[in-house]
Amino acid sequence: MSSSPPSLAAASIPPNSRKGEIRRRWFRRRTAVGLPPGTITPHEQRPARMELISYSPGDYREAADFSIEQLPSLLIPDRVHWLNIDGYGDAELLKSLAKDFKIHPLAMEDVVNTHQRAKVDNYDDQLFIVARRVLGPPFRSEQISFVLVGNILLTFQEDLEGDCFDNVRERLKSGRGRTRTLGVDYLLYELLDAVIDSYFPVIEGMGEDLDRIEEAVQGQPNPESLRRIHDHRIDLLQLRRAAWPLREAIQHLLRGEFQQIGRETLLYLRDGYDHVVQIMDILDIYRETCGDLRDYYYNIVSSRTNDVMRTLTIISTLFLPVTFVAGIYGMNFENMPEVKDPWGYPLCLLAMAMIAGGFLVFFWRKGWLRSFDKQAGRGLD
Amino acid sequence: MSSSPPSLAAASIPPNSRKGEIRRRWFRRRTAVGLPPGTITPHEQRPARMELISYSPGDYREAADFSIEQLPSLLIPDRVHWLNIDGYGDAELLKSLAKDFKIHPLAMEDVVNTHQRAKVDNYDDQLFIVARRVLGPPFRSEQISFVLVGNILLTFQEDLEGDCFDNVRERLKSGRGRTRTLGVDYLLYELLDAVIDSYFPVIEGMGEDLDRIEEAVQGQPNPESLRRIHDHRIDLLQLRRAAWPLREAIQHLLRGEFQQIGRETLLYLRDGYDHVVQIMDILDIYRETCGDLRDYYYNIVSSRTNDVMRTLTIISTLFLPVTFVAGIYGMNFENMPEVKDPWGYPLCLLAMAMIAGGFLVFFWRKGWLRSFDKQAGRGLD
Amino acid sequence: MSSSPPSLAAASIPPNSRKGEIRRRWFRRRTAVGLPPGTITPHEQRPARMELISYSPGDYREAADFSIEQLPSLLIPDRVHWLNIDGYGDAELLKSLAKDFKIHPLAMEDVVNTHQRAKVDNYDDQLFIVARRVLGPPFRSEQISFVLVGNILLTFQEDLEGDCFDNVRERLKSGRGRTRTLGVDYLLYELLDAVIDSYFPVIEGMGEDLDRIEEAVQGQPNPESLRRIHDHRIDLLQLRRAAWPLREAIQHLLRGEFQQIGRETLLYLRDGYDHVVQIMDILDIYRETCGDLRDYYYNIVSSRTNDVMRTLTIISTLFLPVTFVAGIYGMNFENMPEVKDPWGYPLCLLAMAMIAGGFLVFFWRKGWLRSFDKQAGRGLD
Amino acid sequence: MSSSPPSLAAASIPPNSRKGEIRRRWFRRRTAVGLPPGTITPHEQRPARMELISYSPGDYREAADFSIEQLPSLLIPDRVHWLNIDGYGDAELLKSLAKDFKIHPLAMEDVVNTHQRAKVDNYDDQLFIVARRVLGPPFRSEQISFVLVGNILLTFQEDLEGDCFDNVRERLKSGRGRTRTLGVDYLLYELLDAVIDSYFPVIEGMGEDLDRIEEAVQGQPNPESLRRIHDHRIDLLQLRRAAWPLREAIQHLLRGEFQQIGRETLLYLRDGYDHVVQIMDILDIYRETCGDLRDYYYNIVSSRTNDVMRTLTIISTLFLPVTFVAGIYGMNFENMPEVKDPWGYPLCLLAMAMIAGGFLVFFWRKGWLRSFDKQAGRGLD
Amino acid sequence: MSSSPPSLAAASIPPNSRKGEIRRRWFRRRTAVGLPPGTITPHEQRPARMELISYSPGDYREAADFSIEQLPSLLIPDRVHWLNIDGYGDAELLKSLAKDFKIHPLAMEDVVNTHQRAKVDNYDDQLFIVARRVLGPPFRSEQISFVLVGNILLTFQEDLEGDCFDNVRERLKSGRGRTRTLGVDYLLYELLDAVIDSYFPVIEGMGEDLDRIEEAVQGQPNPESLRRIHDHRIDLLQLRRAAWPLREAIQHLLRGEFQQIGRETLLYLRDGYDHVVQIMDILDIYRETCGDLRDYYYNIVSSRTNDVMRTLTIISTLFLPVTFVAGIYGMNFENMPEVKDPWGYPLCLLAMAMIAGGFLVFFWRKGWLRSFDKQAGRGLD
Repeated sequence: MSSSPPSLAAASIPPNSRKGEIRRRWFRRRTAVGLPPGTITPHEQRPARMELISYSPGDYREAADFSIEQLPSLLIPDRVHWLNIDGYGDAELLKSLAKDFKIHPLAMEDVVNTHQRAKVDNYDDQLFIVARRVLGPPFRSEQISFVLVGNILLTFQEDLEGDCFDNVRERLKSGRGRTRTLGVDYLLYELLDAVIDSYFPVIEGMGEDLDRIEEAVQGQPNPESLRRIHDHRIDLLQLRRAAWPLREAIQHLLRGEFQQIGRETLLYLRDGYDHVVQIMDILDIYRETCGDLRDYYYNIVSSRTNDVMRTLTIISTLFLPVTFVAGIYGMNFENMPEVKDPWGYPLCLLAMAMIAGGFLVFFWRKGWLRSFDKQAGRGLD
Repeated sequence: MSSSPPSLAAASIPPNSRKGEIRRRWFRRRTAVGLPPGTITPHEQRPARMELISYSPGDYREAADFSIEQLPSLLIPDRVHWLNIDGYGDAELLKSLAKDFKIHPLAMEDVVNTHQRAKVDNYDDQLFIVARRVLGPPFRSEQISFVLVGNILLTFQEDLEGDCFDNVRERLKSGRGRTRTLGVDYLLYELLDAVIDSYFPVIEGMGEDLDRIEEAVQGQPNPESLRRIHDHRIDLLQLRRAAWPLREAIQHLLRGEFQQIGRETLLYLRDGYDHVVQIMDILDIYRETCGDLRDYYYNIVSSRTNDVMRTLTIISTLFLPVTFVAGIYGMNFENMPEVKDPWGYPLCLLAMAMIAGGFLVFFWRKGWLRSFDKQAGRGLD
Repeated sequence: MSSSPPSLAAASIPPNSRKGEIRRRWFRRRTAVGLPPGTITPHEQRPARMELISYSPGDYREAADFSIEQLPSLLIPDRVHWLNIDGYGDAELLKSLAKDFKIHPLAMEDVVNTHQRAKVDNYDDQLFIVARRVLGPPFRSEQISFVLVGNILLTFQEDLEGDCFDNVRERLKSGRGRTRTLGVDYLLYELLDAVIDSYFPVIEGMGEDLDRIEEAVQGQPNPESLRRIHDHRIDLLQLRRAAWPLREAIQHLLRGEFQQIGRETLLYLRDGYDHVVQIMDILDIYRETCGDLRDYYYNIVSSRTNDVMRTLTIISTLFLPVTFVAGIYGMNFENMPEVKDPWGYPLCLLAMAMIAGGFLVFFWRKGWLRSFDKQAGRGLD
Repeated sequence: MSSSPPSLAAASIPPNSRKGEIRRRWFRRRTAVGLPPGTITPHEQRPARMELISYSPGDYREAADFSIEQLPSLLIPDRVHWLNIDGYGDAELLKSLAKDFKIHPLAMEDVVNTHQRAKVDNYDDQLFIVARRVLGPPFRSEQISFVLVGNILLTFQEDLEGDCFDNVRERLKSGRGRTRTLGVDYLLYELLDAVIDSYFPVIEGMGEDLDRIEEAVQGQPNPESLRRIHDHRIDLLQLRRAAWPLREAIQHLLRGEFQQIGRETLLYLRDGYDHVVQIMDILDIYRETCGDLRDYYYNIVSSRTNDVMRTLTIISTLFLPVTFVAGIYGMNFENMPEVKDPWGYPLCLLAMAMIAGGFLVFFWRKGWLRSFDKQAGRGLD
Repeated sequence: MSSSPPSLAAASIPPNSRKGEIRRRWFRRRTAVGLPPGTITPHEQRPARMELISYSPGDYREAADFSIEQLPSLLIPDRVHWLNIDGYGDAELLKSLAKDFKIHPLAMEDVVNTHQRAKVDNYDDQLFIVARRVLGPPFRSEQISFVLVGNILLTFQEDLEGDCFDNVRERLKSGRGRTRTLGVDYLLYELLDAVIDSYFPVIEGMGEDLDRIEEAVQGQPNPESLRRIHDHRIDLLQLRRAAWPLREAIQHLLRGEFQQIGRETLLYLRDGYDHVVQIMDILDIYRETCGDLRDYYYNIVSSRTNDVMRTLTIISTLFLPVTFVAGIYGMNFENMPEVKDPWGYPLCLLAMAMIAGGFLVFFWRKGWLRSFDKQAGRGLD
């Protein structure tokens, strides 16, 4: 099936730094237009690094910095092997791996085009899984591909700021837990679980930020809070887009169609599935919370505008009429009898005071003189 | 399956007091990163207390303050036992229980990591159920785990302000109701039903609060109402998150896959299911009501801003032009013939009155002079 | 199954009068906390009244004001019986009925706790149906329970302002229609259909009110319209909550699992199902219409605020600058050459006119001088 | 099954003219309260007209203005008959038809109560279909009922401004197309297709109107646009309510349960189904477009209010302070040294210019002096 | 089945240029009202062009500019043929093709009426697929129809600005990839994949535009951004309407009901399906992002209005009262003792300064003097 060797070409794409760039990159097309389906086109020039861990219940070995030619000699029958490839810069290496392990061209295309949704596929008797781990802030995601060939588990990563497998490596090395005693399917579960675990710190950081924003909005709403709410909503859309297919993929694995996954491992996968569901729950709650916060912000701004307008209206209404009265007696007409009257001035001041007092009573009755802060206590408890 | 004893370590987490803390805590991760799956890591240092109730239709005994070594002697064949454990502070005790009752490591991990969604699992022939009861206000939730091992029902609680099982205990003791005559599955139903019942007072309190807020909004909208509406929306999201999986779990039990639940108890569970559905209904209605109240608040503020603006506009429009006229005749030009005319002053006052009168007619026609309160009657009945 | 007689206790709850009360009552808990499941606790002290109608195609008899001891003698074999119980005040009566007809304790609990969702249950070979009829305005709902025991149909009602079965009674008495010729299942259908019919007047009244509100909003928006829209949205939520489970219950009946319902009656039930679906349709449309009306109201208020603001801005912008000019020449500086110039006054007036005219041209170009009413014609048709 | 002849009574309802009336009428109840199910109560007094078309591949005959007694003689074996009844004014005629063709009472009730949802029912071996065609603007809908009895297709219409079947009649008469060569089921398809086609002109007219409204909103938002958007949203709700059940009904037909519909006709019905789905698609898009337009309108009004407010603020801020300065030197205190200074006047003017200039610089920095029109170019392209 | 030759008539429709036109055209009806179903009515007068590519693994031939009579001689057994028809102007040609390849009239009607939803149909053993490719901006879509007749694949296009198949042609010609070695079903997959690929550039362009709009909104919100957001929302509705049925169609193909599609090609189609799902994901995210941007825009405008109002209120409140004081002493009453007092003027100035200072303190305490820009830092980190 992999008879026609796919053409391999290395494309150069500059690293992304700005936020807008990251978002655009997120949605980039899978392969360059014009290539036949199944073409391997690595798009990053990071050199590939290989790392091999092989173990049995009582034994553990690791190897690194070996060449593709040395690989067959390192694979020992009756042991579990985990071959981890970091970076896609070496097209020849990927081509060789695809040939050696008879990986289906479509799987290989998905490995190198790192904008896949999480999924599970079965090519002949190879189990192919794509998952996405997340990092941040600033929030990013990275594709991790798993190919299970017999007793050998291959993982492909983009090599972005380390990976999330250090705990699994440490457990394998120290022999803690049950990883070494169970088979390659349990190793696959532990790695998937580590990918799922990568969501929790990101979500927790976001939750703490939402709490801070909520406090800030209640105190003094400002556009910075608004911008953060907006950014979180966009990030949550992306997180959800990464997590939702992961849930579907694990659900697919749980259906028990894949004979590579043993019954005991399915029990553990069910546990992992619960965690993804929990992640989805929290993402949904956070997204609704963001919307609620935005509406809350808006309502507070709107209440304050009302407060400001009321102040303006009261001041204007008090002073415009009396200023007009003052204007009348500032006119220079010769024939103004009031002006010459000795009681004119005090009567005029009295009239002004009555006008202003009348408006004050009017506003008092309308309830406009009580400030919002004092109203807060009314009507609720 | 429980051959490798999981490592037990007690972690210390300070008690939460502020509201933001509570929300964050809600979404905390299940286990510390880096531990193998299935690890028991109790995160609260409350000492564990055990309480054992054993009964048959005609007999009832209870025991407390016994040690784990005394437990086997307290378990009598052919009787129903309910072993309740409060608090997770004693890691050794939990380890012993897990070993004695052969509880699956994953179940034990879920017991001590108290941020699970409600769920039903079947490990070998042990039925494992997680449920969440709610308390408040301030609104909180607590995980309660059930493990059904043969004729023995184990319940694990965090020991937060008592529990919700006192009525069941009292019925068992007094022999009222049918609890003692039916088996351990009926006891499980009664306890689940007590958990479900814990939602109703919280929901009712919230409903009464919403009624009060609605009255306050209609009277005089103020930011305090707004803050309460916002808080309730967030709380309702959390309540829904606790209740939804509980509904799924009971639906799962109802499917009849679990041979531990008898046919008669299924009838009762169906009743409990109706109550969870009712809770979901009310939560959905409350959440929509909160959204409606927020929009209502906003519309009222917006109507009042319009009212305020109209007042300002009327006053300004009446007095700015006439003040200008007064300003003209307050100018000190020597060559102003009107000023010397004996009819100048009365004519000027007349002109001012006509200007103001003209604007009054204009506003009258626009309908701006009728206050909102009087408009209320128009057009509706 | 009904071997342990449930304890009966009459609780007293004052009648609700205010609206807020009604809403709260709607969501009250099913039984007092602390009672075992299956307890009959009537919560209203209205005395119970029994009414028995028995008929065959050619015969019709009715009885009322008989005691529970007389009941067996009134039940004649080979006839259809309809036993209607109004009010739950007589706990002894309900206990006797439950024992005589062997009604399951859970069914009996649902009968007296009148806050159930509509549902269909099958206990042994008794068909148990809960439905809710609606009354209003002010909008309320009442639970009606049906128990079908062989050839006898029991209906339980709260006795709130009569019932909705008068037409069925009249048809049975007069022999019109086909009710007497078909069996007890057709009688059940006719009563359910009468319950469904109780929704239509409420919905129609609401529709007419929405039409009136729409006209009022288009004419002159006022907070009274807003309050009504808000009330209708809340009522529609409640109506939907009553109708949705009724639809599910009838769909459940239609599945044909219940052998008590004959094939011919299923045809009629299908018709009843169509009517509930129609009710749901209308409720959804009304709720969306309410939301649209609220947004429409808000947009109109917002347009008017804009209109008001524009008026204010135009007047202020016209008169503030010229008033300032008048103020300059009202100053008392001795060295003001313009003041002594015989052309000073007319030139000053000219300058003022030019300033005001310039702003008028500016506003004309901005389109602010055309009132909204005249703009309405532009751009459309 | 139709042994008991239903009672027939003609009710008089005045024709509706105003819009609100039309909407109310839309949701009117099916039968007068108090009648037994299956009662035929025609609610319009339009006299019924019958029209019969009978054809075979090579022959075509039509008849009109015949009486119910003449009908049997017009029905010729081995030919397809289409009997169309317009108007429900003649209760006796409907009763006779129901008896002659043995139409089920429930079907007959649905025929005359013209507020049904579209649906498909099977009574014995009669296929009964209700569909709704739409007319407008002003938007209305009309129920059309189909009863397929052997080789005879009966259609019942309310006779509202002609019907939508003229094209089918013309094709039958001229022998064009394949209608005459295929059976009665194909005729049924063609008539259903004509009903579906009646939606397209209404939808297209609405689409063109939405385009016009969009242009008007972009030019100069006015309340007339708002009213139209609101009306279209309500109309779209109604249209959707008419089209959605039609889609369900055709899907029901497509399932192939009805042996009256041949395999070849099912191919054509699949095509009709595609068209209803297309209608639903467009209705959903239009409804979302209406919502978007409303929000767009609102945002534009809100931007303009901001524009108006800024103008007011700038003018007020420029002239209020300098008018105050002028006011100071307009005071009549005797002891004002500045007034007597020959440089007082020019220095005062200079101070005013500096105050105004300072505010101008402040506004310039805030970006308030650039009008929105010029800002439009910034930041985009 | 195609025995009755459908009538062919060419209709003339002017080309659309303005945007509104395009949208209206989108929803135009399928066939002119009054024609029998299955009528071919090409609505564009572009002359039809035919292009034939035939190949086997080792051979490749192409032909163009041949007549319909020459076609049979160009079809060679045992080779794969791809016959592409551009433009529907030549009704006779389409009629001949329909007859020669025995294409079902309904399929042919769908081919020429280019407003279909994407779909898959099976007529006898011809596979008929409709898909829509998209172009833009300005955003448009074009229908492409596929008919698979044995080893011959017919594609029909409207001939709008080239097509999206150039890469497939080039691969066929050069023999690159595996297209020539696999059968006609793989060719069909490659063409469908090219159609799917046509969505990515449009989506990417839109994503970049959304990023630009987001930056513009954060900088200085202006109505142009608003218009663009609105346009994108409408375009996204249309894009979704084109992509959704495409997803359904490919899902339909994947179910494996069509024996024309081989097992190996299904693997590739699964890959294509993943891409359509990815497109739907991005469209949904973009639409939500548009909504979020609109709300963000609105909130920023609203914050700025609040800012503007505050400035106005502060200035008015500072200067209206002191201007009134100046007005008092500008009155010409003869009996004003203050005026003659030598300390009158300085005391008056002092009073004014105290009034203004009092209001400044009031505003300072209310927090109105801090500009929004400075508030931004408060409360968040």
